[in-house]
Amino acid sequence: MEYRKIKDDDDEDASDVESLKGKSHTVASSNIALATLGTGGSTERINWKRKGVVTCALTILTSSQAILIVWSKRAGKYEYSVTTANFLVETLKCALSLLALTRIWKNEGVTDDNRLSTTYDEVKVFPIPAALYLFKNLLQYYIFAYVDAPGYQILKNLNIISTGVLYRIILKKKLSEIQWAGFILLCCGCTTAQLNSNSDRVLQTSLPGWIMAIVMALLSGFAGVYTEAIIKRRPSRNINVQNFWLYVFGMVFNAVAIVFQDFDAVANKGFFHGYSFITVLMILNHALSGIAVSMVMKYADNIVKVYSTSVAMLLTAVVSVFLFNFHLSLAFFLGSTVVSVSVYLHSAGKLL
Amino acid sequence: MEYRKIKDDDDEDASDVESLKGKSHTVASSNIALATLGTGGSTERINWKRKGVVTCALTILTSSQAILIVWSKRAGKYEYSVTTANFLVETLKCALSLLALTRIWKNEGVTDDNRLSTTYDEVKVFPIPAALYLFKNLLQYYIFAYVDAPGYQILKNLNIISTGVLYRIILKKKLSEIQWAGFILLCCGCTTAQLNSNSDRVLQTSLPGWIMAIVMALLSGFAGVYTEAIIKRRPSRNINVQNFWLYVFGMVFNAVAIVFQDFDAVANKGFFHGYSFITVLMILNHALSGIAVSMVMKYADNIVKVYSTSVAMLLTAVVSVFLFNFHLSLAFFLGSTVVSVSVYLHSAGKLL
Repeated sequence: MEYRKIKDDDDEDASDVESLKGKSHTVASSNIALATLGTGGSTERINWKRKGVVTCALTILTSSQAILIVWSKRAGKYEYSVTTANFLVETLKCALSLLALTRIWKNEGVTDDNRLSTTYDEVKVFPIPAALYLFKNLLQYYIFAYVDAPGYQILKNLNIISTGVLYRIILKKKLSEIQWAGFILLCCGCTTAQLNSNSDRVLQTSLPGWIMAIVMALLSGFAGVYTEAIIKRRPSRNINVQNFWLYVFGMVFNAVAIVFQDFDAVANKGFFHGYSFITVLMILNHALSGIAVSMVMKYADNIVKVYSTSVAMLLTAVVSVFLFNFHLSLAFFLGSTVVSVSVYLHSAGKLL
Repeated sequence: MEYRKIKDDDDEDASDVESLKGKSHTVASSNIALATLGTGGSTERINWKRKGVVTCALTILTSSQAILIVWSKRAGKYEYSVTTANFLVETLKCALSLLALTRIWKNEGVTDDNRLSTTYDEVKVFPIPAALYLFKNLLQYYIFAYVDAPGYQILKNLNIISTGVLYRIILKKKLSEIQWAGFILLCCGCTTAQLNSNSDRVLQTSLPGWIMAIVMALLSGFAGVYTEAIIKRRPSRNINVQNFWLYVFGMVFNAVAIVFQDFDAVANKGFFHGYSFITVLMILNHALSGIAVSMVMKYADNIVKVYSTSVAMLLTAVVSVFLFNFHLSLAFFLGSTVVSVSVYLHSAGKLL
């Protein structure tokens, strides 16, 4: 369960890597945008390509994330403080954003769009996603009084539905009926793929448990959709600046969490107590997947993000068959088929 | 398992009831058809209404069939010969067809379309569905060497896919891509709804078991699609005549089955040994659902039939909650949702 927390925390994220390696690409694409003004075909193709690349990156990073979790479980239990790891993930993402920005400043000079300094009007919304995730993570401690851990994993699929609903309401973007059908199927398929002999216990969840699960799904969905809204509100603003500020607040909130949750452990045993090679790998992976999430928010949307992480979950299971000799259940095959069909429907059902 | 056999046998069926109670309706609808020649709106509405009525009838009859099976199991084991019950189902359907025809002859007189006498060219294809079902039922005895009964119930969902594929190949009717997606989901959803803790055993099925399951699915799908082809080949021919000949061959094949399988029991204990009130109810139900299947074949198609019987399976489970205090599993809810979405997709994905 522990690494889940890291994952939840870094849902608000940066696309630093994009600028690290893709700066010239961005310049090139805006030149092309000017050149093809009127037809727009090439720009659209480049946008599609970029969308595809970031989506694949997110899928691969998310699936390797889950594999690292399994690996760490096999390797034994790690006695590090989860809050310190979360803090380091935010710090790493912040550092990568700054690194990307220094390269951009060197190449393009400082402009209104890429300067780090900001206004209260721009920055005031940036703490909100981090605060939402913190609140959700606090709730997570209480929900286990009502639901066991496997049950919680199943209830987390409610996130899919809440993201879809809030995406519609807050971002006012429309999905076609076929795409909605696909989205419901995505939720059913993911849950089916996770079914095991104890899953039925989740049906005995009491009313407070259900309410908390729904509130958590709404918080998580809202944080995701709100992050997309922040990133897309100023289209010309450089994303690395936007991410920098998102991550600064992520660092602040996680620092507070260290003080409240793990102060004694950190004071007595040190900040890095219990860290190992695999902990470092996982922090690296979480930071990169965080960046990938941000890029997907910028170049695609929350819906694509949900599809991407869902497909990642299935990929993880398939890879685990080879790596850890996992056995796939019939429920997994059925769920995977349903998820595949839902991916097809999302693309086939596009509003023209 | 025993009643399954009855069910499999009467997949080729009659719409006698339609004529018993719907004669005036048929006359009325042909009058309307003439009146609205050119616009066709009313005719279409009547066709849709008729399609809806027969589909609902099939759904309700099929679900009550399964409830009778549960009831009969609760009431204890019945020591009657299954082959004699199958034979009586065919006989009852044959009698109902004749009864419907006598009414038609009285109202309309004997015409080329409703006369009972037939040609070799017309009748030569009628034994084929009955023969296919017989062959499939024989295979059923052998497949249990490779698969257990719950596993067989799961593998039977392959029928859905085989029906879709053969419907496309033999009847050359097109489904849209969205409808194909719906059909795959229907298969996944039905299987998911039936999942239990032992379902994974079906994945250990050996190659001969898989081959037999696929052959059985193809035989069953082929018999269904072939029956539709026979019924629709001569559109003006009265369906009760077509059904009469189908059922005559059903009687013949089942008579042969009595001789080969239950000759001793029938000779020593009598034809009706072990019959009870519930046996009679089940025979009646099977005859009526057989008739409903035939009506669906005539006024709709095999795809609608598959959807109808699948939805019936889900309805049965829901009704069983109230009747027998069944507990519905999480898998059932997920499967039902997937089936519901697939029904929506079938209708939303219609080729225009």
